[in-house]
Amino acid sequence: MGAEPHDVDYRLLDPFKRIAQKIASGTDTNIERLGLTVVRESRGESAFLIRGLDGRTPALLATVPETLGTKNLVADRMREVTGRSYYDQIAQDAVAMNVNDLLTVGALPVVVGPHVAAGSSEWFADEERAHDLATGWKHACDLSRCVYGPGESPALVDLVRPDSAVISGFGLGIVRVEAQRISSRRLRAGDAIVFLESSGIHANGLTDARRLADRLTNGYQTRLSNGVLFGEALLAPTHIYVSAVEACQDAEIDLHYVANITGHGWRKLMRAREPFRYVVHDPPKPSPLFEFLIENLGLSVIDAYGTFNMGAGFALFVDPQDADRVAAISSQQGLRAWVAGDVTAASERSVEVPALHIVFPESSLKLR
Amino acid sequence: MGAEPHDVDYRLLDPFKRIAQKIASGTDTNIERLGLTVVRESRGESAFLIRGLDGRTPALLATVPETLGTKNLVADRMREVTGRSYYDQIAQDAVAMNVNDLLTVGALPVVVGPHVAAGSSEWFADEERAHDLATGWKHACDLSRCVYGPGESPALVDLVRPDSAVISGFGLGIVRVEAQRISSRRLRAGDAIVFLESSGIHANGLTDARRLADRLTNGYQTRLSNGVLFGEALLAPTHIYVSAVEACQDAEIDLHYVANITGHGWRKLMRAREPFRYVVHDPPKPSPLFEFLIENLGLSVIDAYGTFNMGAGFALFVDPQDADRVAAISSQQGLRAWVAGDVTAASERSVEVPALHIVFPESSLKLR
Repeated sequence: MGAEPHDVDYRLLDPFKRIAQKIASGTDTNIERLGLTVVRESRGESAFLIRGLDGRTPALLATVPETLGTKNLVADRMREVTGRSYYDQIAQDAVAMNVNDLLTVGALPVVVGPHVAAGSSEWFADEERAHDLATGWKHACDLSRCVYGPGESPALVDLVRPDSAVISGFGLGIVRVEAQRISSRRLRAGDAIVFLESSGIHANGLTDARRLADRLTNGYQTRLSNGVLFGEALLAPTHIYVSAVEACQDAEIDLHYVANITGHGWRKLMRAREPFRYVVHDPPKPSPLFEFLIENLGLSVIDAYGTFNMGAGFALFVDPQDADRVAAISSQQGLRAWVAGDVTAASERSVEVPALHIVFPESSLKLR
Repeated sequence: MGAEPHDVDYRLLDPFKRIAQKIASGTDTNIERLGLTVVRESRGESAFLIRGLDGRTPALLATVPETLGTKNLVADRMREVTGRSYYDQIAQDAVAMNVNDLLTVGALPVVVGPHVAAGSSEWFADEERAHDLATGWKHACDLSRCVYGPGESPALVDLVRPDSAVISGFGLGIVRVEAQRISSRRLRAGDAIVFLESSGIHANGLTDARRLADRLTNGYQTRLSNGVLFGEALLAPTHIYVSAVEACQDAEIDLHYVANITGHGWRKLMRAREPFRYVVHDPPKPSPLFEFLIENLGLSVIDAYGTFNMGAGFALFVDPQDADRVAAISSQQGLRAWVAGDVTAASERSVEVPALHIVFPESSLKLR
């Protein structure tokens, strides 16, 4: 009855999020007449859960809206250089933002639909880009083992820049059985942290990267130490972690918690509200792209790991005796996975990377 | 296996819709492993349906993404005049766009979540507007008898104009029992058309209205014949038709078909693919707002009814013996409703309004 989620600190949020979350978490409309009920503690989490009243399967429905951000502005500029649209990759980024968030509550994606709001109707007339965008969306849904859902494609003249589009999506997922639902309540001191590799920058930190391109003499055409163009490296499509999580579920691994490492970089590892210290003993070696970003943005190590995923796109928290098996199962799905650290008891949250002298205190994360 | 929806004429669509619908309707990923299957004939309809495999309730899940369009640009300008933000009303428009579409397949809304993409992070710092937007979203969800769902609120610098936002939403609904699912297959010659009143322009035709304001000496401050400011009349929030439809379902009315009269105005009455003639004998009297738009945009009658809802926001198609009862039940929910016309057999589709000498031929509608 109007209760707030248990420990939201509204002071930490921007005004809109603070106000909206407070109002949204007021007394919910009664949906019991529809045989459904809200899982109130999922409010403010990465995906929002609805439960069927009578224990029938699917146990839980999960919904999420996610934006791509401004990564397609990089694609628009790189098209001028190489002639490719890259919107197939952009579509995968947008789908990934949705499905990887669904996974964090233990849901597998069912439907992901596109919302493409262009600044002009002419934008939709470019057949090559249209084909790339739709093909990429379909391919990403196939990788996510879900269905290409309904789309919306308005031209919003005077609101969006005429030569580009705001790309977002929404996802519907299900948690097949209650035991597969993931919430931080199952996270325990002693748990192992298994990292799954990222493909690159994914879809976070793009505004910084775009500003950097504006300052470089050769812009997106600057070559990284491995010879790849800066712009092309940025456009590597976000990895999709569905098959790894589903394979773990099918192997009856008890996933205690999962973190999608997006905005806030590695600070996201302490997303759970409980006080734990997360220690990463085996960070990945930064790729040429991250080395380039750090050097040219003049970032400190702590700023880099607090902003970018730095090579680790997703984290699974499991019982230490399951850790090697989780890494092996995930690797079988085609992504490098390794046991990277552990969770220890603490009086307040922190993320630590001893080899890099990094300590992120609890106060550095403002999420909910 | 890769079959296309039965009679989509891809030539009629803009390139992106044509390409995207063709690719989206390719072989679907197998979601039977999740106990679910796609209702393929719902592709291209106003909401997309997923069915549970074993006949359990809810029978069907419905999903939809919908954009508000550019109506909030009118609110931004009117705020300069009156000091009110109007974003409470804007939020209702965005929710209405989603829930009224869910109703067209017989689904009742469960969750509607906001996606608010501003052009700057400063946009979110305006507490009055933030409060209005969130309060309006909550109120509209209450009117829709559903839950205020998860939101996303990115700042998309360089993509959206800095002083405004792209507002959209996504909706999840359920069709409680298979018998309440609405598809055009149940529409019959002889059916009555029951109109539900609109509140005004709703969220369609706003680009025309904005262009008109630019040309008027007093812009949005021009007074209509009833003394209301043009801008305020435009901002009347879209009616929500959930309670009317739910009341009809609860009264065991067999709703043969439903049309949400949005883009394409009254041409939307022939949304069903089957060849019928839709004859409106009792059109509503145009409000001062519509009279003003027609006169100042220099519209012909046929262009006006082919663009705007002209006072009829929603149409229910029912057995003629149910028609008076449907109008009475809907009116009890606080909206004017009346038996306005009927459906007759024909060799191809048309919409006719004899009193206004209007005939819309099939070729005037390009939807799927």
